[in-house]
Amino acid sequence: MITTDSDIKCFGGRQIVCRHHSEACQCDMRFGLFLPPLAQTREVPLLWFLAGLTCTHENAMIKAGAQYWAAQLGLAIAYPDTSPRGPGVADDKDFALGQGAGFYVDATREPWAPNFQMRRYITEELRSLITAEFPVRRAAQGVCGHSMGGHGALTIAMTMPDIYRSVSAFAPIANPMRSEWGQPQFTAYLGADSAHWSAHDACELMRTHGYPGRIIIDQGGDDPYTALLRLDELTTAATRRDQECDIVIRDGYDHGYFFVASFVERHVRHHALTLSAC
Amino acid sequence: MITTDSDIKCFGGRQIVCRHHSEACQCDMRFGLFLPPLAQTREVPLLWFLAGLTCTHENAMIKAGAQYWAAQLGLAIAYPDTSPRGPGVADDKDFALGQGAGFYVDATREPWAPNFQMRRYITEELRSLITAEFPVRRAAQGVCGHSMGGHGALTIAMTMPDIYRSVSAFAPIANPMRSEWGQPQFTAYLGADSAHWSAHDACELMRTHGYPGRIIIDQGGDDPYTALLRLDELTTAATRRDQECDIVIRDGYDHGYFFVASFVERHVRHHALTLSAC
Repeated sequence: MITTDSDIKCFGGRQIVCRHHSEACQCDMRFGLFLPPLAQTREVPLLWFLAGLTCTHENAMIKAGAQYWAAQLGLAIAYPDTSPRGPGVADDKDFALGQGAGFYVDATREPWAPNFQMRRYITEELRSLITAEFPVRRAAQGVCGHSMGGHGALTIAMTMPDIYRSVSAFAPIANPMRSEWGQPQFTAYLGADSAHWSAHDACELMRTHGYPGRIIIDQGGDDPYTALLRLDELTTAATRRDQECDIVIRDGYDHGYFFVASFVERHVRHHALTLSAC
Repeated sequence: MITTDSDIKCFGGRQIVCRHHSEACQCDMRFGLFLPPLAQTREVPLLWFLAGLTCTHENAMIKAGAQYWAAQLGLAIAYPDTSPRGPGVADDKDFALGQGAGFYVDATREPWAPNFQMRRYITEELRSLITAEFPVRRAAQGVCGHSMGGHGALTIAMTMPDIYRSVSAFAPIANPMRSEWGQPQFTAYLGADSAHWSAHDACELMRTHGYPGRIIIDQGGDDPYTALLRLDELTTAATRRDQECDIVIRDGYDHGYFFVASFVERHVRHHALTLSAC
């Protein structure tokens, strides 16, 4: 059952925030959903916007500025949270582990496994919920994300391309298996055996899967986390595979939401164009 | 002396946050400044964005989405704080008085007078500082604001039209002398004699001054603070004066930043067009 926390008019459409009990995460979860004006009269494509470390459902919704374009192009946008939350949910003093840092995997290790099922939550539970309750087209879904959410977008899209028909990322964590943004978290959530990590690493998935469509990626040329993101590795893997991939380094930009907002138009346009054909 | 806290690329321009010691407010103050790409090669007009109750310099900078338009139209935007702040600065448990609620007046009463000089701070000290330190055109300044900041924009522009050559407001507190958003604050800051209030009331100033140019105002049709804002009174006063004034009630919108972002394009365009002729 969904509870509506707020439902506010925005660019002629509706910016909604809802709360529901998650079976996957065994706690209450919140999400944002933008519905464009077109959704008043028919079902529209749905873009998932996965956020980065420390974010809730609110950050991208408030800061990325995607609604302006989505309103014009007739696209809904879902803004899920980045982890389960609450006093009964495991956490860690490191901002990059635990609450606010779900890494879009299904944890198999204690104390994380009972709640940290973010991949299943987003790709199954919340997807079922939103497509059932709101005027969105089940067959026309895409996914984008920022930083940890870019990792989520790329790994989810490459493993479920029949569901996620378009994909893009802002400054994604592109090779978490070989990064301090990835190794400690995968060890905690999935165990020390790195054989269980490859299914959640965009570079590994680029080698084994690729994606049946163009991938759009932007990253700031002055991103202070460049060494942790390892986008070069993904670029190399994409080139080797001959993957259609449009990776652009934006001179002078950093890692934050002013960077995301500066390039969100091209991402929303890519998703709207691709999904309109689905 | 100005200290730069951050200087981030944004829509091809720069989103800067600075800190400085304010003589007017007798404390350190922060402000945001957006410089469009055009400012790399020449001085550009400057729009002041005054924020509402509880806001810092950050809220409009992060949520209003004005930079996208300002970048295209070659406009700088200054985002001042809404009050002095700090442990040595007077405050009140009411969110609508004290820190975060300066109301853009110069307090004459204790304990507020030593720090709460927000009108002088913005129209003199910070204006001098920004026009001296950054590539903005001193002769081409405009002012807009939201809620309490809309009150600030209207009252400052009507009393200093030679400096502020364009003005607009989102859901302004339009008649604070006759509102619970105004009377308690004016009593605290300016004293109980309402003769000292009229210079800070947009309706009074509309009767006595008006403004030598078009005033642009938007307000949400579902704004829950409509009775406190009293925009009807300003509309009546503007009509009586035959003031050129474009007031639009936006059906279904509320009082928040999704409302502001939805209509910020028309405001930025108005300022850019008007100031380009100065």
